Amino acid sequence: MKQSKTLIPTMREVPSDIEVKSYKMLLKAGFLRPSTSGVYSYLPLSKRVLNKIEKIVREEIEAVGAIEISMATLQPRTVWEQSNRLQYFGDELFNLTDRSNRDVVLAPTNEEVVTMLVSDEVQSYKKLPLMFYQIQTKYRDEKKYRKGLLRSREFLMNDTYSFHASEESLENTYHEVTQAYTNILNRLRLSFLLVESDTQVVGGIAAKEFIIPSNEGDTIIASSNQSNYAANIEFAKVINIDEETKGTLKELEKVPTPNIKTIDDVCTFFNIEPSSCIKTLIYSMNDEFVIVLVRGDHQINEVKLKNVCKTPSLRLATEEEIYSLLNCSTGSIGPIKLPINTKVIADFSIKALQNVVAGSNEDGYHYQNVNPERDFAVNSYEDIRYIQEGDISPDGNGITQLIKGFEVGHIRKVGTYYSEKCNASFIDENDIPNALIMGSYQLGISRLFAILAEKYQDENGFVWPTHLSPYDIHLIPVNREDEGQWNLANELYNILTFYHFAVLFDDRYERAGVKFTDSDLIGLPVRVTIGKKANEGIVEVKIRSTGETFEWAKEELIDRLNEFFRTDSYH
Amino acid sequence: MKQSKTLIPTMREVPSDIEVKSYKMLLKAGFLRPSTSGVYSYLPLSKRVLNKIEKIVREEIEAVGAIEISMATLQPRTVWEQSNRLQYFGDELFNLTDRSNRDVVLAPTNEEVVTMLVSDEVQSYKKLPLMFYQIQTKYRDEKKYRKGLLRSREFLMNDTYSFHASEESLENTYHEVTQAYTNILNRLRLSFLLVESDTQVVGGIAAKEFIIPSNEGDTIIASSNQSNYAANIEFAKVINIDEETKGTLKELEKVPTPNIKTIDDVCTFFNIEPSSCIKTLIYSMNDEFVIVLVRGDHQINEVKLKNVCKTPSLRLATEEEIYSLLNCSTGSIGPIKLPINTKVIADFSIKALQNVVAGSNEDGYHYQNVNPERDFAVNSYEDIRYIQEGDISPDGNGITQLIKGFEVGHIRKVGTYYSEKCNASFIDENDIPNALIMGSYQLGISRLFAILAEKYQDENGFVWPTHLSPYDIHLIPVNREDEGQWNLANELYNILTFYHFAVLFDDRYERAGVKFTDSDLIGLPVRVTIGKKANEGIVEVKIRSTGETFEWAKEELIDRLNEFFRTDSYH
Repeated sequence: MKQSKTLIPTMREVPSDIEVKSYKMLLKAGFLRPSTSGVYSYLPLSKRVLNKIEKIVREEIEAVGAIEISMATLQPRTVWEQSNRLQYFGDELFNLTDRSNRDVVLAPTNEEVVTMLVSDEVQSYKKLPLMFYQIQTKYRDEKKYRKGLLRSREFLMNDTYSFHASEESLENTYHEVTQAYTNILNRLRLSFLLVESDTQVVGGIAAKEFIIPSNEGDTIIASSNQSNYAANIEFAKVINIDEETKGTLKELEKVPTPNIKTIDDVCTFFNIEPSSCIKTLIYSMNDEFVIVLVRGDHQINEVKLKNVCKTPSLRLATEEEIYSLLNCSTGSIGPIKLPINTKVIADFSIKALQNVVAGSNEDGYHYQNVNPERDFAVNSYEDIRYIQEGDISPDGNGITQLIKGFEVGHIRKVGTYYSEKCNASFIDENDIPNALIMGSYQLGISRLFAILAEKYQDENGFVWPTHLSPYDIHLIPVNREDEGQWNLANELYNILTFYHFAVLFDDRYERAGVKFTDSDLIGLPVRVTIGKKANEGIVEVKIRSTGETFEWAKEELIDRLNEFFRTDSYH
Repeated sequence: MKQSKTLIPTMREVPSDIEVKSYKMLLKAGFLRPSTSGVYSYLPLSKRVLNKIEKIVREEIEAVGAIEISMATLQPRTVWEQSNRLQYFGDELFNLTDRSNRDVVLAPTNEEVVTMLVSDEVQSYKKLPLMFYQIQTKYRDEKKYRKGLLRSREFLMNDTYSFHASEESLENTYHEVTQAYTNILNRLRLSFLLVESDTQVVGGIAAKEFIIPSNEGDTIIASSNQSNYAANIEFAKVINIDEETKGTLKELEKVPTPNIKTIDDVCTFFNIEPSSCIKTLIYSMNDEFVIVLVRGDHQINEVKLKNVCKTPSLRLATEEEIYSLLNCSTGSIGPIKLPINTKVIADFSIKALQNVVAGSNEDGYHYQNVNPERDFAVNSYEDIRYIQEGDISPDGNGITQLIKGFEVGHIRKVGTYYSEKCNASFIDENDIPNALIMGSYQLGISRLFAILAEKYQDENGFVWPTHLSPYDIHLIPVNREDEGQWNLANELYNILTFYHFAVLFDDRYERAGVKFTDSDLIGLPVRVTIGKKANEGIVEVKIRSTGETFEWAKEELIDRLNEFFRTDSYH
């Protein structure tokens, strides 16, 4: 490809408000441009990298038997009502009305449509299992989209769906897809964690996430320092240690605490640790108020709370609601003397507390020497807090550490969630109708691209590995006006192309400095520079990843390049 | 591919209201399913054909220098306001509002966005010309979508855009893309007409359409019976023959014509031909009324009228508006004694009329012996009617014939329409800013697929040519329970696959009749049947296109199949 014929608009500086490392370099090296909020144009070099990623995904997912189909992006809103998923996606769904006033949704994922498709066409266990995949543009009206391709509103995804007559069959496919995704990430040379995930959004039996560890990551993983255990903290169970109550229970005491509102204030006032306080919250769920208690040093996990309460619609009560319920402000609520019939859910850790401090439901006062059971009743103790660093690992082996990362894949044993909602059944070997059993698997292609763009760069630009690089070789005549250089460059362009190298030929009338800076930004594995020794038939070869340079005669170039690309193991 | 692992839901009957031949067979052979109104799911076999079509398109368009990029589908409505195209697309644009209340459009095409992209990144003539392409899902809220893939609301398109510093450069690329599209259609073995098209929707210098002739087609082409001339009738110019006025002008006469409203009524009443009547219409454009006259036997061409009036917003006046303007009904309007300052546009053919009949602007009366100029004034004579069969061909050679067909491609020398609207300029060799000169080219991929699906079928199902077929060979053991047949089938499946044939292996427990009927529906070029002679190592081979059958020993199978696929020229 002649560089003058393609568009690689490199920049020397990017806007200072762009902080995401991948996005910054994709802009700077001329791979990407913003189109509108959270939506991007992939320029020619991006498209070449994306095509290579797609090819790897295709090969691996087809190797485990997935068949390519293509479902529509325009989906009737009614199917989302039927599956009860509107409430989970909420404002993240793009909604529109067509010219006939029908409500339409831009699909962020296709579970409903594929379930209905299979349900219409597959009646017997004999036609199962089946597995379909797509690589398709998806839509999600993200609130926090300012991260370039890490979180865009229009993005490329591989979505794969499997259908089964038995859970064993689902189990097999689930393992195969796990292996396929593992192979993909290995071929992309990305290390990852396969972590336990929440099954809440679509019900389901089990789910895992593929997480690429990164300090910039927006997902937090709890992992053990001694075992292989790792889980999304939304999901990681907390092991409850039933501590013996050791001391004596002191007498409950109401203490004036003017202007004391936060846990920090309370700790300072009473000179205690947050672990000696009870944090009391009021949630509204389905028009009912529920009192929720966690220890002062713990954070409530709303995903767990939703699962415990079996509802997706749950929110903190407003200041006004709290006033009308308890006649006090948020900072003063506590578990003692609540209105009759108020439901109280407490984290397991509350049970073992002794002589702690809690709000009094009266502004300006707190109770001290509060003791659960003696001073207040709890309807149920549950695991409703986030796991923390230092907690026992949920598998019982070792201590929990927290790691940040990016979720790039999600695999779910969905089970019969959609098939029950959509009446999708098949006839089993005994002629009995059963709900179709489903698996659902997603891999974020544009997100993977962003992560690769973050990984494969140095201070001068991208450093693409050979198997992902948009082209193999950057061919640069130092001075286009020099006839000897220009002729040799053209000769080599033809030869290299003949030998099936993908060559980017910098045929521009630019200064050498500009060409070299651009070349470093673009980051192809090998740069072949044709300079002063052109008339001797000697070129300079620079390896982008190591910075090594060589002077090679044009006659040996092909052999040496073949050798380099055959043995390159840079990653 | 084992047939049990993929989804090919053949049907014996399709719903009787489905009339379109391509859609009917795509349903029947299990290639396609409707998802929602005018929106489809491409099942596995379709996807394989589509991928082959896409590959051909990619190869040909890249061969003329187009570079692949990927622009977003979500586009701000503001860019469509800026380009003044909202009014052209009207209700066909899908509109939505995002969570931040911004108006968004689902792109049916990308001229605006690509112009802005190039404008931002290309400042100098040195970086021109450039050409980009996409193969992408596009959206259009079609009113008449009941034609399967011929006119769907979510469809696959190749859109290509070129940018130039000079008209000569545009001219070159326009010819190259014409050649690329020609090559694509030739490789798909589709005969086509390349016809002159209207440039109205996006302004522009010239445009052509690629039309596949078909009696089912929704586009009408005027072609010469003696030359190569062909044009969309929306566009085809009518040659005005300035006939000498021969006779004497008779005296204007007002005749009572109770209940006479239509041209047909008038002709019967006066015993004349429609060509001896003036058809008078009133159009509203930009809050002004315009009287439009065509001969009684002619049809007004609103595309031409819009071009003449230089406005996209033009509609027939309502009955009420006509009453308030002329105090008569639609059937009585005429060109005589119009309110002062009423603008009158007449088709060229009106000029030569003598002693004809027209409305009187008074219900119940017509004028006869009407003569233009003498009895009414015309502001301008224009070409505003549709060309008809028998008219002189617009190129002056031969007589016009009308042909129906499907538009599959559109190429336009757009010129500076968008770059002027978007302030997209470059600096030329003399340091002077100029508007970018653009070309825009579209090829409908899903529409081509439908046309191929119509072309390649017989009464039993599809008859795919080798280069488009989803698989090469249909391998069918007659009786799966017969161990000899089953073993030979598996052996051949492995061998054929090893020799890189794409094999669909019917491993289902179905009766032979079901398998053969399905096989004919699916329509792969070669069927290899393993039946009673399995134990002798003999198989039956049937060529789908010719119906020929052969008995071949398994040892000679590969050689003979290689020979068939090498020499196959069926189309």
